[in-house]
Amino acid sequence: MNFELTILGSSSAIPTSERYPTAQVLNVLERFFLIDCGEGTQIQLRRLKINFAKISHICISHLHGDHYYGLIGFISTRNLLGINNDLHIYAHSELKNLLQPQIDYLKADLQFKIIFHPLNFRKPELIFSDNRAEILSFPLKHSVPVCGFLFREKAQLPHMRKEKIAEYQIPLRQIQTIKEGAGFTTESGAVIPHSELTTPAAPPRSYAFCTDTAYFEPAAEIIRGVDLLYHEATFLDEMAGWAAQTYHSTARQAAEMARNAQAKKLLIGHFSTRYKELQPFLDEARQIFPDTELASDGARFRISR
Amino acid sequence: MNFELTILGSSSAIPTSERYPTAQVLNVLERFFLIDCGEGTQIQLRRLKINFAKISHICISHLHGDHYYGLIGFISTRNLLGINNDLHIYAHSELKNLLQPQIDYLKADLQFKIIFHPLNFRKPELIFSDNRAEILSFPLKHSVPVCGFLFREKAQLPHMRKEKIAEYQIPLRQIQTIKEGAGFTTESGAVIPHSELTTPAAPPRSYAFCTDTAYFEPAAEIIRGVDLLYHEATFLDEMAGWAAQTYHSTARQAAEMARNAQAKKLLIGHFSTRYKELQPFLDEARQIFPDTELASDGARFRISR
Repeated sequence: MNFELTILGSSSAIPTSERYPTAQVLNVLERFFLIDCGEGTQIQLRRLKINFAKISHICISHLHGDHYYGLIGFISTRNLLGINNDLHIYAHSELKNLLQPQIDYLKADLQFKIIFHPLNFRKPELIFSDNRAEILSFPLKHSVPVCGFLFREKAQLPHMRKEKIAEYQIPLRQIQTIKEGAGFTTESGAVIPHSELTTPAAPPRSYAFCTDTAYFEPAAEIIRGVDLLYHEATFLDEMAGWAAQTYHSTARQAAEMARNAQAKKLLIGHFSTRYKELQPFLDEARQIFPDTELASDGARFRISR
Repeated sequence: MNFELTILGSSSAIPTSERYPTAQVLNVLERFFLIDCGEGTQIQLRRLKINFAKISHICISHLHGDHYYGLIGFISTRNLLGINNDLHIYAHSELKNLLQPQIDYLKADLQFKIIFHPLNFRKPELIFSDNRAEILSFPLKHSVPVCGFLFREKAQLPHMRKEKIAEYQIPLRQIQTIKEGAGFTTESGAVIPHSELTTPAAPPRSYAFCTDTAYFEPAAEIIRGVDLLYHEATFLDEMAGWAAQTYHSTARQAAEMARNAQAKKLLIGHFSTRYKELQPFLDEARQIFPDTELASDGARFRISR
C-alpha cells in the first residue's frame, strides 16, 4: 500500500517558468492529502493525473499567497467536476475571511460543504485522525503564524503466524483478539503467549512538512525519526543573515534539522528565484545530511514499508 | 511598431494539462493590456518573458473564476518584483468586493494603488484612451453580466512628403500644423493644399475580444471591420442547443460573427475540455469564415500595418 509524496510546486514566493509555488500531495494508503495550494495547483493535479475526488483534506501552512492562492480555483473546478463530498481545510482561522466573498459568489452552485478547521499556532495539535492516518500540526517560526505538519500512518495490528493457527487449531473468531494483544488458551489449558502467535506489523511510515520557517529547534523533537522530511531551503548559507531576517532557512539549516531530528531522508525546496543553479543547495545540505534530494515539480517520493 | 496579441490561456472553465484558463496580452505600441486573468496568468507571463512592469491596465470580461482567479497572484508578484506604478482594473464593480480581503491582507506591503473602474453592462463605453490606444467595452450575452472589448490604435497623423518640403521650402515650424490638416501658403501667396503635401498614415489597427457569450448580433456593428476578432467557441455546432442554454457559442457561430462583422481574421478559443481534438472546430469555422485560426497557449498573432 502506497505512502507517496508528489511535488506539485517547489518555488518560493515568485513562480518561475520551471517551478510553481508550493503545493504537494501525500498519498497515504489511497487517501490523498493536499499540503499547501499555491496558484496553479489544479493545473498540476490535472497534469499529474491526480483525481480531484480523492482530495477531501487540505493543510495550509500559513497565509502568504504563494501557499494558498490556488485554493479557490481548486474548489471551483472540484465543483465543476461534480464532486460532492465535503472539503476540510486546516488553516489559520483568517483564511475563511479571505476567501469568503469568492466562496459566497460560488455558493448557489456549490455542491459540497467547505469546513474550515483553525490551526493552533501555539502548540502541537492532532488535527486529523482516521483508521489509516493522523496529522499533527506544530508551530514553526516565520514572519506570520505558520504550522508544520507531521503525517503518520496508523500503526497496524501484528500479523498472525499461519503455522501457529494450524498448530493450535485456533478458531477464526479468536484471531482478531489475538491480533489486538491476547494470548490463546488451548483445550488442555496451556496459554500460548501473543508474541509466539504473531509477527509485528511493519512500523508506520511518516512524513513531515516544514515551510516557511527559520531554523526552529523545537520542531526536531516533534518530528524525531520521521521517514521523510521536507524542509524549506530558500537560501544558501552565504545568505544566512538575510535568511534569518526574513525567517527562512538555508540549505545548511534544513540539513541540520534533518540530522538533529534523525530523519531518514531529507527533501529541500522553496528555492529563491535568485538562484539559477540548484546543485550548490544539494552540495551544502549533503555535507551535513547525505541523504538529501532536491524537490522538483512532478517528482514523486515513495516510502516503502 | 507592434500590435500583437499573445495567448496566455485558451481553455474554458476547467484547465487542461495543455491549456490554462483565459488570459491574453495585447501589445499596442509597447503598451501591454492584460485581457482576463485566469489562474496561472503570472506563470505564463514569466514563461513568455513578458515584463510585469509594462502591464498597468487589466480588462476583466466577467466574474467567472476562470477569467479572474489569477489576478491576486499577479498583483502579489508584481508587488514582490518592486513595481510601483498604479494598476487599473476594468471589471464588474463586484470584483473589488471579491478581492478586497486578500488585497487588505497585502496592503501594508503594497507599493502601488489598485484602481477599479466599473464596467457598463448596458451599453458600449469608452473605458480607456491615451495617445496610443483606446478601449471600448460593450455588452455581450452570458449567464452573468459580461463585456467584450474593442482595442483600437489611435489614428496617426499623415506623413509629410519630403520632396514637397524641399520644393516649397516649408519651414520646420509649420510641419506639425500641416500634418494636422492645414495647407501651406507660399511667399507668392499660392496655397498648396494639405492633400498634396502629405500621404495618409496607415489605418489604425484593431482587436476585439468576445468571451463568454452566446451569439450576440448587436456586437457585430460595434466591432465592424476589426482586424482580428477573438471569439469564444466552447462547443461544436452539434451541441448548439447546449451552447444556447449555457450562453456559449459554437465554432459556427463564432465564424458567423466574424463574417457579419466583416472582421479580417478570426481566432477561436475557450474550447470545452470534452473535446480532445480541435481540428473539427477549425473545419466548422472555416466553412463560413476561411481566415480562422485556433488559439493555443503561447501563440502570438501580429497585425501588421
